[in-house]
Amino acid sequence: MSQRVPVDLAKSYRLLNHGPTVMVSSAAGGRINVMSAAWSMPLDFAPPKVAVVIDKSTFTRELVEASGEFVLNVPTRALARMTLDVGGASGREVDKFAAFGVGHVPGSVVKAPLIEGCVAWLECRLIPEPQIQQAYDLFLGEVVAAWADPGAFEDGHWKPEQGGQRSIHYVAGGHFFETGEAFEIEGVR
Amino acid sequence: MSQRVPVDLAKSYRLLNHGPTVMVSSAAGGRINVMSAAWSMPLDFAPPKVAVVIDKSTFTRELVEASGEFVLNVPTRALARMTLDVGGASGREVDKFAAFGVGHVPGSVVKAPLIEGCVAWLECRLIPEPQIQQAYDLFLGEVVAAWADPGAFEDGHWKPEQGGQRSIHYVAGGHFFETGEAFEIEGVR
Repeated sequence: MSQRVPVDLAKSYRLLNHGPTVMVSSAAGGRINVMSAAWSMPLDFAPPKVAVVIDKSTFTRELVEASGEFVLNVPTRALARMTLDVGGASGREVDKFAAFGVGHVPGSVVKAPLIEGCVAWLECRLIPEPQIQQAYDLFLGEVVAAWADPGAFEDGHWKPEQGGQRSIHYVAGGHFFETGEAFEIEGVR
Repeated sequence: MSQRVPVDLAKSYRLLNHGPTVMVSSAAGGRINVMSAAWSMPLDFAPPKVAVVIDKSTFTRELVEASGEFVLNVPTRALARMTLDVGGASGREVDKFAAFGVGHVPGSVVKAPLIEGCVAWLECRLIPEPQIQQAYDLFLGEVVAAWADPGAFEDGHWKPEQGGQRSIHYVAGGHFFETGEAFEIEGVR
């Protein structure tokens, strides 16, 4: 089981700022589900908000619209196959947790689960915007709790050069990039 | 001057799918400007659409709202300092192109310029959604032309392992990640 420590909400945007691919978990009416999303981003600092694209055809969408909640989970290369697997199947047809061996624990504030083995988790409450949900499949959320594996992200900073597991960035057709070398530009602000 | 070849619109989402930081360029009424944005993402495949966060305080916002157009430019590590510089100054106060040595050429479809030295460019027409622009600083656009440096992206694929320049991913406080190692998960769909 992955370690998990709270992340200051004011710094939670840093879990997504570099554009990793996420898994979106959800729960409603006793059902839970998980899908993948390459299309998510921070939307604001305070209160922290996020945006994520959730297709009309997905079971996730049904659960998110019913519960008004979701979690963005940041997977690592070790979970890349799982990320594709849960992105390629529908929770209407299979229990993806059982089928793909997806471990999960309950969220702290929302009912949607946190996916085991990830390095960061953002628990979100939906900001209802039915018109843009309908027109663009675009969902906005306020981050109400955030967590990170302290081996990967601690005190507001990613630790890739200290052996921390790296997040991943999906391109297309099974092709990913790992999050790469960290570098700093000095003397800026 | 960077090379530039057209990218099939159907594959243009791949220029942004892995979550790189972008520069947003704009033009209206004879003025041009450029800022940086870590918060952008693809929004749809066909027609290709994007979403980007543009703060109310920015001159870019004024030009985008006046012209209904913008370009997302994907910079490399060689442009990391420029990316921070154009993100930290306002085009109301300084000519950022002169102050920071930002080369540019005209867009092909939109009036906003393409920034030299980048590896990809998405020319976008604003999809007006005044309510979400006002409430969330969130701007949607349809990609109407796309370009890439063929040394970095060709035939719909990034070429990082062939010496292609890599895109960058901003975290905070001058800290970036480079786009890292490419890997493929086989046998998926």
